[in-house]
Parts: sequence; structure tokens; C-alpha cells
Amino acid sequence: MKIVEVSSPATIANLGPGFDIVGLAIENYRDIVRIELTDDDSITLEIINNTGADVASKPYQNSAVVSALKVMEYAGVRKGFKMKLEKNVPIGIGLGSSGASAAAGAYAMNKLLGNKLPMEVLVKSAGEGEKVACGASHLDNVAPSLYGGFTIILDVDKPEILNVKPSVDFSIALVTPKVKLPMNKTEYARSLLPKKIDLEMMVKQSASVTRLIIGILDGDLEMIGKAISSDYVVEPARSIMIPRFYEVKQTALKAGALGFSISGAGPSVFALTYPEDAERICNEITSKFREYGIDAVGRIVKPSPTGARIE
Amino acid sequence: MKIVEVSSPATIANLGPGFDIVGLAIENYRDIVRIELTDDDSITLEIINNTGADVASKPYQNSAVVSALKVMEYAGVRKGFKMKLEKNVPIGIGLGSSGASAAAGAYAMNKLLGNKLPMEVLVKSAGEGEKVACGASHLDNVAPSLYGGFTIILDVDKPEILNVKPSVDFSIALVTPKVKLPMNKTEYARSLLPKKIDLEMMVKQSASVTRLIIGILDGDLEMIGKAISSDYVVEPARSIMIPRFYEVKQTALKAGALGFSISGAGPSVFALTYPEDAERICNEITSKFREYGIDAVGRIVKPSPTGARIE
Repeated sequence: MKIVEVSSPATIANLGPGFDIVGLAIENYRDIVRIELTDDDSITLEIINNTGADVASKPYQNSAVVSALKVMEYAGVRKGFKMKLEKNVPIGIGLGSSGASAAAGAYAMNKLLGNKLPMEVLVKSAGEGEKVACGASHLDNVAPSLYGGFTIILDVDKPEILNVKPSVDFSIALVTPKVKLPMNKTEYARSLLPKKIDLEMMVKQSASVTRLIIGILDGDLEMIGKAISSDYVVEPARSIMIPRFYEVKQTALKAGALGFSISGAGPSVFALTYPEDAERICNEITSKFREYGIDAVGRIVKPSPTGARIE
Repeated sequence: MKIVEVSSPATIANLGPGFDIVGLAIENYRDIVRIELTDDDSITLEIINNTGADVASKPYQNSAVVSALKVMEYAGVRKGFKMKLEKNVPIGIGLGSSGASAAAGAYAMNKLLGNKLPMEVLVKSAGEGEKVACGASHLDNVAPSLYGGFTIILDVDKPEILNVKPSVDFSIALVTPKVKLPMNKTEYARSLLPKKIDLEMMVKQSASVTRLIIGILDGDLEMIGKAISSDYVVEPARSIMIPRFYEVKQTALKAGALGFSISGAGPSVFALTYPEDAERICNEITSKFREYGIDAVGRIVKPSPTGARIE
């Protein structure tokens, strides 16, 4: 095989208390990476940008390219390639956009090299690729982009991952408020986090993570939702970048959202809902933002059981 | 009913990363509480002490009595009673001894008052009773003493508890090194803990907790064991009270222990083992301590599916 085309989905990371370890693939947006191996050792990148935002176009600053290179490194191979990246995952709103490109790049290159590396090494490669290209690695984004469904990281360093496909139908009302954020939003969102956590808070957070995991394993939407809404560490710190966050959260929960929190590094917020409630709740959330003079874009998105796949 | 006799088991709390939220009931030791309601409002306590250590004999300093009083408070009743406490759970070695008494006291009083309070309120009562009597509450001990099996606290404040009965057979090699510790050992063990945790450590610990919970739900002993051995917060801090802790841990794991950590607030250490390996591993652990001139007592203990029960 000399050419392969792969797509990888958008993702919602954290899901409340699962900071840096839990993520969910979203079927509505997929980055598509086409790689063709070449006979020289040059690397070229062509981008079709459907996002309306800036995409890193220099190969060594693009997470798809660098992740593909990492896969070659782990496979002990070095070849040139032409990459075409169709960028569809919205950028900078908390949907794991660079992670989706990284996942697609890593998955595609592994296919081209004979599928030698296990999925966990692809997660590692995509994480490292994202880090080199963007300055930060988000395994909780790249893992669900690769596996689909829910991913739970059992060992951060290795990494070791448990993949759980959703066993019940649900929807997500994703609402992106228009807020002015610093250029490097992800870095800013991380800078808001406390460096240190009170032991007592860690215990409360452990209990919430536990509820989230049990909910995911049992396919218990109410349990997942309650856990999503009970993040004692990350949400309180990051909510300051979203004006009126708690008023909006209260509105969503009162409207019947099963859970509500910030999507990834924000500024999008999301509500976990039964499918039939999604549109109504999405409207209530956007209306609430607008009531406070904050423009907001609402979308209904669905979980994707499929992660990276050949197109 | 005017008289009831109840027993509650010893427990191992934390199980590594599950600090303050996970515990396991142990069948080998049970405190027995007999309560007889009286017609006046006096409270008397008689103790049969089989532990060889000091037991708080003043009623209002004994966790069984104060927990029984808390149950009366929640039930809106105030009567006098005579309590007879047979103290069998070894004291001060990390087996949740005061929690076992508290659980038995709370469970017995609830039975006498017509079984009106749900189990979660008994956990709360026993926790608060233990706190008044001993200065600290250990829900991760009182919960398994009440429920049996594994207990997982999903909400620390409420409390809300998930009970999981072990679905596979295993043993625990529990080894108590003879070390000099300050009078109030539990308080001392807590004083060793860091007040604040690095965010990065919290994430690693979240991943370990997650592994522990999934292992418990799946009855996967290797997963439980690996999680038990991967505590990034509590074990490093408390291990300083156990000389040669890491050398002994290494010996246990090399001998085939599935997991190894400190039992509750210590100083006992424990190894999770397959039943057929327990005695050999227990011997290796005690021998290792003795090699370093530290006397140690080894016991093989088994999980108890049954928590508090009428005798």
C-alpha cells in the first residue's frame, strides 16, 4: 500500500471530573488525512480547510504530520510522504481538533507501514505529535479520536487505555459562546488550573471520577450526567473564561440536562441529554447566554462508536 | 424488640489509590455489640476486650456507643440502653477497629428502633459517631463494616455508596511490623499526608483509582492488584512510618503478590494474592522485615461478603 485515506472524529475531553483521562468521540465532524508515501524523503502538506479558522500549514507545525512522523519513528522507518489534510473539526472551541488530525495522521501512517504498531502506541505517537506541533498533548482527545466511543486512560505514562462503546443512545447539546480568548486558548485554559489541589478536594474528585467510570461501564446516563456535573477541580477554575457559566449550567440542569460541563479546554459547554430533549435544551442554553448579551452557537452532536477509520 | 446482638467485620481501607473512598470487609475479626433498651435514659457500657490493647471504656468516648446515639438522633428517638461490646478486631494496626465497633453500634440500634434508617444513614451515623468518639471519621472503614465486600463511596458528603461483593476468591497476606508509633496513630498517619497534591499527580491518581474501580467491578484480581500497587499520593507519604517499606513491597511483588500497599492508616501492610499463594507470600514478607531486624506478625485474612449482621 502506498496511499491511504483515514478519517478521525472530533472529541469531547474530560467529561467533567475525568480531567486528562476520559474522552468521548463525536460523529459530527471528522478530519480526513490522505497520505501517499514517496520515493524521496521530503514531506509536503496540502490543506483543505473547511473550518474558517487558521490551520498550521507548515508540515512540522501540523499535528497530523508530526504524529505520522512519530509513527515512523516507533516503527523504525523513515520515508518521505505527501499528506493532504481535510480539516473539518472546528478549531479552538473544545472539540479536540488538533487531536483529531493527530489521530488520523498516526492511524494512516501505521496502515501504510503494514499496521505493525498496536493502538496504544498510536495514542502515544499522536499525543507526542500533538505536543511537538502544538505545545501540549491531550491523550484524552487523541485516544477517543483513535478508538471511538468512550476512552478511559488507566495509565497516563504508558499509556494504557480502556475503550467502552456507548451501550445506550444519548445526545449532546454543545453550545459555543462567543467570548474573546487569548491567542493560544488551550495554553490559557491550562494556565487557569490550580497547580495544587487540596487533599480533601482530591478525595471528592476521586469519588466523582468513580461515579463517571461506573456510569460509563454500566451505560447509566443519569450516573454519567451526575458525575459530569460534579467536577470540583477543573470546572471551577475554567468557568471564569465563560461568562455566566453557572447561571447557564443551572438553566440546563433545570431544563432536564442529565449533566453539564465545559467541553475540553472550552469555551464550548455541553449538556448530556436524552435524544428527545437535546434540541429543546440546546435552545434553552443558547437563549440563556443571549439573555446576558453573549452570542452563542448551539449544535446537537452524537457520540461516535467509530474512531479512526479508512475512508 | 428490646435486645439485639450484632457483629461487624474488620476492614482494609484505601486499597492503595482509593484513599477515603474504597474499603474491603475482612471475615477474620468481628466486633460484637449487644444492646438492650432500658426504661430510664442512662447509658452503660460493658466491654469484653479480646484484643490485648486499650479500648475506650467511657461510653461517650466509645465509637459503638456514640454511633448508636447518632442513630437515635437521626431516628428522632432518645432512650437509655445497656451496651455490651465484645472487642475482637485488633486495635491500631490498620484494620478499622473503631469503625467496626461504630458499624455494629449503629446497625444494632437501627434494628432495635424498627429498622427505619437506610444503610447510607447508618454509614453517616457510624462515621459521625466515630468522629465524636475518636476525633476522626473513616467512611471507607465503616461502610465495608456495614455492607460487607467492597464499598465504593460515590459522594463523600451525602454519603452515597456502591457495594460490590467479591465475585472471585482471593486471599490477603496481612503483615504487621512492630514499629513504635505516636500514641494517636491514626492522627499521626493523617499528619504525614500532603495537604496539597500537584495537579499532575491528581491525574495519575485518578487513573489508578479508575483501574481499581474497574478491577473491582469486573472481579479482575490482576487489575485490582496493579491498582493497589499504584498509589501516588498516600503510600509515598505514609511509607516513612514503615521501615524498609519499599524493599518489602518489592519482595512481595516478586513473590507473586498481585498488589501490595499499606492497610488503612497502617502500620500493617497487605498483599493481595491468589488463595494458594497467600501463605508463602505472607512468609516472605515477614521474613523480609525480620531480615532487617524488624519483628512482624503475619496473618492470612479473607474478604467477608457479609457486613454487619444479627448474631
